[in-house]
Amino acid sequence: MAMLSLDNPTFERFAFYSGVAIGKTLLMSALTVRSRLTNKIFSNPEDVAGFGGKEIIGDERVERIRRCHQNDIENVFPFVLVGSFYVATNPDPWWAAVLFRTFVISRCLHTVCYLTPVPQPSRFLACMTGWGVTAVMAALVIRAGRV
Amino acid sequence: MAMLSLDNPTFERFAFYSGVAIGKTLLMSALTVRSRLTNKIFSNPEDVAGFGGKEIIGDERVERIRRCHQNDIENVFPFVLVGSFYVATNPDPWWAAVLFRTFVISRCLHTVCYLTPVPQPSRFLACMTGWGVTAVMAALVIRAGRV
Amino acid sequence: MAMLSLDNPTFERFAFYSGVAIGKTLLMSALTVRSRLTNKIFSNPEDVAGFGGKEIIGDERVERIRRCHQNDIENVFPFVLVGSFYVATNPDPWWAAVLFRTFVISRCLHTVCYLTPVPQPSRFLACMTGWGVTAVMAALVIRAGRV
Repeated sequence: MAMLSLDNPTFERFAFYSGVAIGKTLLMSALTVRSRLTNKIFSNPEDVAGFGGKEIIGDERVERIRRCHQNDIENVFPFVLVGSFYVATNPDPWWAAVLFRTFVISRCLHTVCYLTPVPQPSRFLACMTGWGVTAVMAALVIRAGRV
Repeated sequence: MAMLSLDNPTFERFAFYSGVAIGKTLLMSALTVRSRLTNKIFSNPEDVAGFGGKEIIGDERVERIRRCHQNDIENVFPFVLVGSFYVATNPDPWWAAVLFRTFVISRCLHTVCYLTPVPQPSRFLACMTGWGVTAVMAALVIRAGRV
Repeated sequence: MAMLSLDNPTFERFAFYSGVAIGKTLLMSALTVRSRLTNKIFSNPEDVAGFGGKEIIGDERVERIRRCHQNDIENVFPFVLVGSFYVATNPDPWWAAVLFRTFVISRCLHTVCYLTPVPQPSRFLACMTGWGVTAVMAALVIRAGRV
């Protein structure tokens, strides 16, 4: 069976695409902070005391970015979690590369669609594509595992 | 020490139960989408433009599913993250199987309790059981690790 | 390349600090439950039927803990996910220890700042420090990976 080590080219590739996907998710935190500081919209009284502005829960300029971030949490983290088991099943390297690239491209398109925003169903399709990749990997992991 | 590879029966078992737990979490996204499309309740103007319906934040038909999903995020992801270190500590295979099965069964019961809903304290007990499994594994990992 | 096994001292150290960080995140669930039961504030009618109190969405006594928990989800999970790839790149053990310790200390300070609360920009700086550690590790993983 395949090792979880950079000596294994599929793991090496999984590391790259996981790094990109998590790096993209981290950027959402930075975008939220930028939006809060620019629009002076905060959730806590001590933030208003320190940075000025108003305490508002639910302002759309912040909430759209947060929904996009939450969608990353709901999709990127499961991809990386399930993907490491998938790599351990010693998958065909070509198929593995197709799945990893499809996932990362679909997640980047999802973010562009959400923040622009691009008319639906573009965001819906981007989200379903990434979800489908993780669901396929989960099914293969369950089949390879032991009850 | 035990390898993180499908040659290790405990890892093989961990892969199966992690795949099931993450697959269950992924299903919550699908349930949210189904509820949004059926009840025509969306969070963004472009969704209403594309699919019809109304822009409502906080409708209970969607929010109950989302709270259940969020609870999975708060419990399933830590289980898989901490579990891989736990497998690396080379635990007794029988105890490991008990912990993995207890976790996954309690999470499935939690979802049934939340979506039915079943009277409390059933959901509370299901949640605490899964939480306890992850807490035990975290304590064993901390003890086996190096400061 | 370095193995993901407790025979590797950097992995052993990563296991310890990941266990502490996830254990700390799990404690936020317990704090939320305690605050709900003490203040009798719940999100679901079946919780009120079972435990008494009122159904309130958005009460600050619960929401502050939940925002702190959400911040852990947004920062601790990526740290553990990206960190396992970082360990696989066979980093200098001294630098790896600096990054792991900086992350865990900054996250503990973040929680103290959020729950006290301590005046800003203390929480902001604690959050940015942990975020920076994960971002550095993600960049190193992307560089070591394969496109």
